[in-house]
Parts: sequence; C-alpha cells; structure tokens
Amino acid sequence: MPYFDAASAAPLHPVARQALLAALDEGWADPARLYREGRRARLLLDAAREAAAEAVGCRPDELVFTSSGTTAVHAGIAGALSGRRRVGRHLAHSAVEHSSVLHSAAAHEAAGGSCTEVPVDRSGAVDPAAYAAALRADTALACLQSANHEVGTEQPVAEVAALCAEAGVPLLVDAAQSLGWGPVPAGWSLLTASAHKWGGPAGVGLLAVRKGTRFSPQGPAGERESGRAPGFENLPAIVAAAASLRAVRDGAAAEAVRLRALVDRIRSVVAERVPDVEVVGDPVRRLPHLVTFSCLYVDGETLLHELDRREFSVSSGSSCTSSTLTPSHVLKAMGVLSEGNVRVSLPPGTAGADVDRFLEMLPEVVAEVRERLGAPVSAPPSPGPAASLVVDALGRRCPIPVIELAKVIGEVAVGATVTVLADDEAARLDIPAWCEMRGQEYVGEEPADRGSAYVVRRLS
Amino acid sequence: MPYFDAASAAPLHPVARQALLAALDEGWADPARLYREGRRARLLLDAAREAAAEAVGCRPDELVFTSSGTTAVHAGIAGALSGRRRVGRHLAHSAVEHSSVLHSAAAHEAAGGSCTEVPVDRSGAVDPAAYAAALRADTALACLQSANHEVGTEQPVAEVAALCAEAGVPLLVDAAQSLGWGPVPAGWSLLTASAHKWGGPAGVGLLAVRKGTRFSPQGPAGERESGRAPGFENLPAIVAAAASLRAVRDGAAAEAVRLRALVDRIRSVVAERVPDVEVVGDPVRRLPHLVTFSCLYVDGETLLHELDRREFSVSSGSSCTSSTLTPSHVLKAMGVLSEGNVRVSLPPGTAGADVDRFLEMLPEVVAEVRERLGAPVSAPPSPGPAASLVVDALGRRCPIPVIELAKVIGEVAVGATVTVLADDEAARLDIPAWCEMRGQEYVGEEPADRGSAYVVRRLS
Repeated sequence: MPYFDAASAAPLHPVARQALLAALDEGWADPARLYREGRRARLLLDAAREAAAEAVGCRPDELVFTSSGTTAVHAGIAGALSGRRRVGRHLAHSAVEHSSVLHSAAAHEAAGGSCTEVPVDRSGAVDPAAYAAALRADTALACLQSANHEVGTEQPVAEVAALCAEAGVPLLVDAAQSLGWGPVPAGWSLLTASAHKWGGPAGVGLLAVRKGTRFSPQGPAGERESGRAPGFENLPAIVAAAASLRAVRDGAAAEAVRLRALVDRIRSVVAERVPDVEVVGDPVRRLPHLVTFSCLYVDGETLLHELDRREFSVSSGSSCTSSTLTPSHVLKAMGVLSEGNVRVSLPPGTAGADVDRFLEMLPEVVAEVRERLGAPVSAPPSPGPAASLVVDALGRRCPIPVIELAKVIGEVAVGATVTVLADDEAARLDIPAWCEMRGQEYVGEEPADRGSAYVVRRLS
Repeated sequence: MPYFDAASAAPLHPVARQALLAALDEGWADPARLYREGRRARLLLDAAREAAAEAVGCRPDELVFTSSGTTAVHAGIAGALSGRRRVGRHLAHSAVEHSSVLHSAAAHEAAGGSCTEVPVDRSGAVDPAAYAAALRADTALACLQSANHEVGTEQPVAEVAALCAEAGVPLLVDAAQSLGWGPVPAGWSLLTASAHKWGGPAGVGLLAVRKGTRFSPQGPAGERESGRAPGFENLPAIVAAAASLRAVRDGAAAEAVRLRALVDRIRSVVAERVPDVEVVGDPVRRLPHLVTFSCLYVDGETLLHELDRREFSVSSGSSCTSSTLTPSHVLKAMGVLSEGNVRVSLPPGTAGADVDRFLEMLPEVVAEVRERLGAPVSAPPSPGPAASLVVDALGRRCPIPVIELAKVIGEVAVGATVTVLADDEAARLDIPAWCEMRGQEYVGEEPADRGSAYVVRRLS
C-alpha cells in the first residue's frame, strides 16, 4: 500500500539494512574497550562519524551521535544556552519549529530564561529581518529549522545565519527534514538531524557543534560521545545511519527532481479538483517530497481513516488527529485552515502511478466525508433578511463550528454578522481561515460565558 | 576467540536478531500514527511492553523504554528526586553504583542537592543497617544496584527495600547486570536495566516506576513513552530487546548453574596457580557469570594486551586501562588491590574448554608481565639493617610504586618504615592493599611537596 508519510518515518533503506546486519556481527562490542572486538567497534564508529561529518559538512570531532533527533535538539539547545549563560538567557526561535525545540524553549522559560518566537508568513517562512529584530544583546542562542516538517517550506537559513553572525549569536539549525536531500547552507553553529527521517534506523540522531561555539553539556556527565550524548553507543544503528545517509545523498539530486514534479502535480490537481481546499506552504522554496493541504468542512480523522481504508497512509495536523485536540502549531502560526488537513510526504522511490491513484480517489473521498457531515455544497444564496445571527456550536468539534457558520452565512444580509459560539480550539484558527478563503470579514473573537464568540461579517 | 566481557556488552542473542529483522520490516513506522503501518507498530510496541513488564514483574503501564540503561538511570533518578522535592533533596546511594548513578548524584549535588554514599565491605556489599542509617527525614530517593558490574557481588536488595519502605523512601534498583538472570526481589519503587547486557540490541533501556511513586519527568517535555523518554521510539530494537529478555530468561536457571561452576573453577584455580593474587567479590552471593581478580606487580593494560594477543577478551578496573587514569571506584570503595585487575564475565554458552585454556595460560602470562616489570619474585629476605627508607616513585605509574615498595621492604628492620613518594592515583589504593595482602602495617598517607608520602611499617 502507498505510504505517503516519509516525514514521520521512512522504511529502512536497503543500504541501512545491509550495514545494520553487518554491524550487528562486527560492532556489538564496547568501542571503549582495548580488546579486538572493542577495537573493531571503535573503527566502525570512527568511520561512521567521518561519513556523517562529510555529509553534514563539518569535522568528525564536531559531530556526535545521539539516541534520536529529539535528544540531539534537547542536548544542543541546553548545551548552547548554558555555554553562553554569561551573555544572557534569551532564546530566539521560529514559531514553526519542531516540538523538540518548542519543548526545550518551554523548559528554558520554566527555568527562568526568556524566549522570543519569531512569527512566520502565510507560507510558513520567517522573514530574515524579523528574525534579526528578535536578536537581543542577551540572546544566547537562535534556532531555525532548515525546512518545515509539516508544510515543507524552506527557511531562509543562509540569510538568518548571516544576520546571527553579525549579531554574534550562534544559530542552531534543526535539519531533521532536509539532511537527506543535501547539506544545510553554511553559517550554522549547531546542527541536529534524525536518521530515521532519511531511511536510517530509529535510535540515531546527529548533533554537530562547530569548534569555537561555546557549549556546556547539561545533565549528568557522560564518558561517551565527548560527554554530549549519554549511554552506550548504539553502534550498529549508527553505522547503518551513516551508510544510508551517504547512499541517500548519492541519489538525492535526481530523486528530488522526480518527487518535486510529483508534488507539483499534487499541488495543482488538488487545488483544481477538490473544492474549498487550501494548499499550504511555499510552492517553490520547499522540500521536494512534501505537500500539505486542508479541506474545508472535513474532519481530519475521518479523512485519514477513509484514505487508510483505500490503502493510502498520510498524516494530518488537524486537531482531531492530535492527542491534545489542538490543531498543529505550524498551521496555527501560518494562519491557515487546519480542518481536513492532509500532509503527503513521498518516500524516495514513490511510483507516479500511486500518486495518480491518490489524486483520482481524493476528490470523491472528500466529497463523501463532507456529505456525511452535512457540509454546504454550494456558494451562499443571495443575501437573506436577517440582521445578525448567533450560532451555538458549543461542545461541537472541528469542523462542525465552521460548517454551521457556512450554513447560515447566506441567511444574513450583507454587512450583517454571524456570531459563532464555540469551545473547540480549532475554531480559533479555522473561522478566520474560512473568512480568508470565502472573502468574508473576520471581525474578531470575544469572550463568552463558555468558549469564545467568533464574529464574522458578511461582505458578499 | 573467547569473549569474556559479557558485563560490558553481549553479542546479539539469535532471538534478538530474528525479532529485530522482523520488526525492521513490520515496525519502522510511527506508532503514534493512525494508518495501518502505525497501528502495526503500536501493536508491536504494546506487545514488547507487556513482555518486558512480565519479565520485570510490573504492570505494562509502569514501564517505559529508554534509549539506554544510562538514560533510564538519569531519567529515573531525576524524575524521582523532583517528584519528592517537597520531602527534601537528599539522595542515598551505595559507593559502588554504576557511573550513571554516580554522575546523576554529582549533577544533583551541583544543583544544590545533598548525597550520602553508603560504604561497602571488602566483598563489595552494603550493610543493610548502614544503608538504613543513611536515610534521613529529607531523603527523596535511595539507589542500590541489584548486583555489582565489576565484581559481581549481589546487594541485599530485599533487606534494603524493606528498610526503605519502613522509612517511606522509594528505592531505585539498577538491575542492569542481573535482569537477564532473573527478576529483582520485590520492594523496589523504580527499576532500570539495559538490553545490550542480556543479549538484546544496544539503544534500549528500561525504566519501571511503580504506580504510587511520585515521579516528575525532567527536561523538555515529550509526547512519547508517558513523557518519560524523549524521542521517536526505537521500535525494532525494543521488540528485539523484549523478545531476547524472554528467551534469555527461559534458559537462565540452567545456564546460571553451569556458569556458576565455571566461575567457581576460575576463582579457585586463579587463587591457587597465580601467586600474589587477590580474587575479589563475594564468592557465593554473586552473579553467576562474573569474577574479578587483581595481580600484584602487574600492569593491567599490559596484561589485557597479552590476553588479547592470546585471543581472550576481558576488561579491567586498573587505572592504566581507564581514560582518567584512576582506578575503578568499585575496587577503591572495597579497599582491594586495583593493579593487574582482570574482570572475567562469561556470556551464556561459554565453553568450559575455553575457560580451561584461559586458566592454563594465565599464570604464565602474569609471570611474564611481572618479569618484564622487574617485580620481586620471592618473599622478603630476613630483616635488613636499615632503620627506615624513602622510595621515590614520583612520576611512575601503577604498578611501579608498589613494586619499588616490595623491592625494599626486605632492606629495613622489623618495626622500621618504608615511605613511598608517589603521585599516581592508584598508589593510594594499592599500597594499603599490598600491606593487607603481605601482612605489613599501613601507617598512613602524608602530604608531600609533590604527590603523597605513603608510610608502611614492616611487621615481619
């Protein structure tokens, strides 16, 4: 069945599998030991470090292997913040970073540090000038992802790096989504990545810290990986990670061209054939393999389930697919629709025919889900007589509040308002997004006894 | 070649290998996703958790998988200390815990907490009464290993657990060395372990926290593993770890009997055939597969090298084999000789014939190393005329200071002293240990311009 969620995890690359099997036999011993099994393990570890460093574009002694991309981010941020504690305790990061960055920032704030979240535009990108404005005299560290994991938008890393260098602030680049496709533009001070995103095994992350970057590892001391990653090295997985990074990179340029074309096809066909859809993220400055769109009046979980029944595996940033019932912070920061959200991320080797089948089937599935939810099918009728209306959607989950809004907008006169009472978190994002898509005016949010009152003025 | 260092890492168990291969195909996807690859991964994760919990003797929802035994210990100690912060900030642990516990304790002290190190006797075991005496009204957590990783001595876990329960203090048991052999006696509140010690893959640790134990995970928040272990689950390795734990346990009782007999043979033959040797650790209350001995007048690194040349892989707690050039903290806490130290830990399946070859070859190798170092070969001659002597061993590494002492002890009269000037860290441990082995009196250590002056009085 077509698996279109490479941004979550990719099946193990054949080269990774081969390297893993070989290293299970040759590299199980402790590389810190003096006997031959240990020396053999040490050689494998050194070779893996050299290969990974070459792919990253750093010196081998600048790179350590961690137990995941998340732990690389946690260790990198904590170590860099502590290393520059004398400068100050301010951390800058974009609003659309991976949760591992946001959780590190929250922990930093809880410990008395301060953070600035740099906003993004509707495509998901930061503005370099806005990023530079967030840097302060007491900024210890700046974080910026190379490309976004939910919408694929590439960040202006080189520009931001130059501005950070000018301000004397080290930049940590989370390259989890892009490292398999190519090196990060120069200028970073710290870089993190995750092997299972490029077809390597789970259990391996990378943390590179440029020489000259002040860094003080946090947590209990460790003897391994320069004290930057505690615990016994997961050597077979490290060997497999390094081997597969090299292999993936060898074919990356050609595969990027091919997948980029497939994603372009998805972007245009979805926009054409699915009514009331918002295809999000930068159409050009983006990861080659990833596209995200949101469908009005659609419940993300049901959509995913229907796609899964038809053997397509995709993910979603809709609130109903999240354990916390909040929409994706990325879609929220972009100000785009979150209901009926679908992220398609194609693994290398994806067949064009599978993408075609997906595109053939999608409009029908979306229509089916909408029908089941009683979503409005046509544009609002000519203005009705009502001066203003209140819709009670309290206790109703996404996408119901928006559906209810759409149903009644035709009943009010142009210039009149519809007020939607809702306590579902997604409404806060999706009602303004609906207005944007529909050419109606979003007046604002007002406090209410329960939930919030979202006021919309009919313009046409 | 015979690999006798199972306590460091064991080759992958065939069951682990098989499970790993299957899970690489079936369990690479994100278990948090809703599509079928994700659901399949979730099923594998749940089954692995159940199997591991059964082997540990806890409920599945009490157990999480971490990225190593070390990270399990770090997370367990930090979470338990924080969870009981209102009670106080005191941590009790034995002097012979694994470095991951000691490093956690040091980090806790650096952050303003206090620690008590419970001493051990010459066999390496804590005295339950002494442990109980270390518990205070403000003790937030007590740590005790199930068995020592360097000398194999089992700790009185059940007794200490009962005393901790009486004091209302949760006990964390580091079961890294013993879990493959059997469950830890009841009474623990937290338990940690490491899969690659029982023949599972690297990259998997266990942290079990009994319901009712106050626990507050530290560091940036995480969505996985109940927030107790950050990062994407290393699912194939987790599956392999759980499967191999079950397989290893199935054969553990019979294999323990067999290896226990082999270790008994090593203990008696080494004591018989190698002169000036100290076999350490409890001869009875011990891990089935592990034995440690130290050879006077022998350089540990050279000995390991010579054994490696003869195709035996063992490890050592001698200072010369450590990157910090300090002797093992375990041997130090026990007060036993650290020079010429050898740890033999037999993997399951070790052939008796390999042990026999080892025992045949060892006395010769030790004699050879001693000869090269110019070690004294016989007991001191009848007392000499000198009233007292000073030996300058400054700048000389273990075992030279002890060899120099042994060379001149014959030259002084009974009742006279030899003062050894030394700046090698191992001398502080090994000169008193030599006195104990030789029946001479260790008078004490005095400060000196450089290093220390160790004073020994000749008694016979």
